[in-house]
Amino acid sequence: MTLQDEIKQLAKEARDASRTLAQVSTTVKNDLLKGMADALVAATTALMAENAKDLEAGREKGLSDAMLDRLRLDEARIQGMADGLREVAELPDPVGEVTGMWRRPNGIQVGRMRIPLGVIGIIYESRPNVTADAAGLCLKSGNAVVLRGGSEAIHSNRAIAGVLKGVLAALGLPAGALQLVGTTDRAAVTELLKQEDYIDLIIPRGGEGLIRFVSENSRIPVIKHYKGVCHSFVDADADFDMAEKICVNAKVQRPGVCNAMETLLIHKDAAEVFVPRIARVLGELGVELRGCAETCRLAPGTTPAVDSDWGAEYLDLILAVKVVDGLDAAIAHIQQYSSLHTEVIVTRNYPNSQRFLREINSSVVMVNASSRFSDGNQFGLGAEIGISTTKLHSFGPMGLEDLTTRKFIVFGEGQVRE
Amino acid sequence: MTLQDEIKQLAKEARDASRTLAQVSTTVKNDLLKGMADALVAATTALMAENAKDLEAGREKGLSDAMLDRLRLDEARIQGMADGLREVAELPDPVGEVTGMWRRPNGIQVGRMRIPLGVIGIIYESRPNVTADAAGLCLKSGNAVVLRGGSEAIHSNRAIAGVLKGVLAALGLPAGALQLVGTTDRAAVTELLKQEDYIDLIIPRGGEGLIRFVSENSRIPVIKHYKGVCHSFVDADADFDMAEKICVNAKVQRPGVCNAMETLLIHKDAAEVFVPRIARVLGELGVELRGCAETCRLAPGTTPAVDSDWGAEYLDLILAVKVVDGLDAAIAHIQQYSSLHTEVIVTRNYPNSQRFLREINSSVVMVNASSRFSDGNQFGLGAEIGISTTKLHSFGPMGLEDLTTRKFIVFGEGQVRE
Repeated sequence: MTLQDEIKQLAKEARDASRTLAQVSTTVKNDLLKGMADALVAATTALMAENAKDLEAGREKGLSDAMLDRLRLDEARIQGMADGLREVAELPDPVGEVTGMWRRPNGIQVGRMRIPLGVIGIIYESRPNVTADAAGLCLKSGNAVVLRGGSEAIHSNRAIAGVLKGVLAALGLPAGALQLVGTTDRAAVTELLKQEDYIDLIIPRGGEGLIRFVSENSRIPVIKHYKGVCHSFVDADADFDMAEKICVNAKVQRPGVCNAMETLLIHKDAAEVFVPRIARVLGELGVELRGCAETCRLAPGTTPAVDSDWGAEYLDLILAVKVVDGLDAAIAHIQQYSSLHTEVIVTRNYPNSQRFLREINSSVVMVNASSRFSDGNQFGLGAEIGISTTKLHSFGPMGLEDLTTRKFIVFGEGQVRE
Repeated sequence: MTLQDEIKQLAKEARDASRTLAQVSTTVKNDLLKGMADALVAATTALMAENAKDLEAGREKGLSDAMLDRLRLDEARIQGMADGLREVAELPDPVGEVTGMWRRPNGIQVGRMRIPLGVIGIIYESRPNVTADAAGLCLKSGNAVVLRGGSEAIHSNRAIAGVLKGVLAALGLPAGALQLVGTTDRAAVTELLKQEDYIDLIIPRGGEGLIRFVSENSRIPVIKHYKGVCHSFVDADADFDMAEKICVNAKVQRPGVCNAMETLLIHKDAAEVFVPRIARVLGELGVELRGCAETCRLAPGTTPAVDSDWGAEYLDLILAVKVVDGLDAAIAHIQQYSSLHTEVIVTRNYPNSQRFLREINSSVVMVNASSRFSDGNQFGLGAEIGISTTKLHSFGPMGLEDLTTRKFIVFGEGQVRE
């Protein structure tokens, strides 16, 4: 079979399976996820043996220690995958929820009911745990899933998918509901992105290069998240103790993730006090500041910022700092440089808090909290399938509900249109 | 300026204007729409003069009478556009609605607030009233709009857009919030579809050819509606009087629209009685039936259906009729041939009604009502910007709410992540 036929076949099987899966009861889906968790733990030795092949190949290819660490499966990580599946099993099932129902003047009742999207394609890199995490979320929301992991994790991914498919089969569910693209041929991704008759949504998870490739080549709708350039604005009458705590947390607690702060804006009336203070505190924590002229004046020794610092996603202990004339200037700066991820205002001023909330249309807007909360788990959505920074369908952290759509349902008593 | 630069400039102006428009109060937006309605009526003579140029050109090009009629503006139709704008002004404003807010264990409050999508591109054919209708819906929901109408209506569309832009300017709102592509050059559409940095959503309205062209060439997300192949299934124990009334309405009341019935499925236990009856009634109303073998046996003189009749969108007084073994066969037939628009079951059987509602995942599923109700207005959404038969973002008739997305808002008191 050609690669083309193979990918089409696999997508078609997923589509067929999705019809069955959409009708499966919550109880059976929960049993499936818990069964998958148990099966992964039971297969620990075999999974680690397959993972060892990936690690070996990675070492030969000269992958960095950080990359090899991301690739590694050990008992704790396999347990982590199992725990993740059990947590998703505990989440409420969005399928079948009626989000509203109303009566029309002619007596028909119209409502909207959540249904699965159908088939979801996940294209991801390195970490093999995504295989189990993504499968769990898609299956719980009644969707079939087509997985395409990175070539460096191919043995691990095949082994994990094999275990999970075994549980589907054992419960009498169609094995086509979980498909792993088993080849490392890059052309398989391009083929996958052409299956618009069989796949309803593509979610790429990985670096900007992967995401751009996917969105430029896909005929299927893609939910994208390019980067997180999160801003915090410290207003003139912020509580400076709170502002310091929030800034330190947003920058330092985990600098390598998309909800870490990358640019700090400070009101000019707060600058005299707050710029030296935050420069000292962050400096002691090893953060390199890149400041505007005013920042450099108030915190001597700060690296002067260049144009490319505004809008930069450092993912590191580096922070761009700018003193701004006030709320309007802060909003204008954010609108110009934001990646639409998460923006924070620290203030005690009520009208300013409301204006910031209303006028900033990033996917997450916060008052007096750390941008690090911008996450499906922290928001109470349960596990997160991704974060959307484009506005169609979903905007911000995506949970189970975002893997569904709504159909209209109508209860009539023989009504016809005049 | 090259066409490329011109389209980019126009899209960029719309993006800039959208930032202002997103913050405009409901009162001002309502005044805008009512002002537009008044201005259109006041400009009746001028609009009809411009429309006469399109009609003249259309006649020279040999457009059919039906096409010319669709193109025509008269006093009643201009009044109709104005009424449409006034109706949209009366609808609730979705922007700013908080669809839920909850408290997390650490005390932060997380909610989701509706915001405009930003800039919406509408690509449409023939009827010039779409210029006013689409503008009204987009502006009311706080979006800027870029309109590209058919070349045959160019003078009418330019005149209508000119009147509407005048009202924006008179109210001190940015004129860039309503952009009409003023050239008839087809390349302008292709350029428009590349403005993914400035346009958030494209909605094509027109024939299947237009929609395919747009979705195959767009880098911007597209909400599509290819066709409406609506099925009705008359169950074994349907009330046959009701079934007849619903079938007649769904087929005959307005056969040329997408929510008219195209295929009738009849339970085999109802066929003996219902096939001859509906064949006679529909025959008297001038409907041509194309039936399966059993239908032809029960209603002699019926044209035998060929393969292409299943899944055909006739948009005419033609109906495909098939006798099926039962609910399972009806569901299987619909799943195979449905365009995901609207499907109806007529039944008195409670379990069957529930199974049909649950197992058919078309955008609209009805029990005991005519498919002709499948429409934003009939459902109480107010005016309709389109119908989506793809599942991302919206599924089914789309109202104002579907022109928005939701951002997360967070109220904290200094919380940071552990």
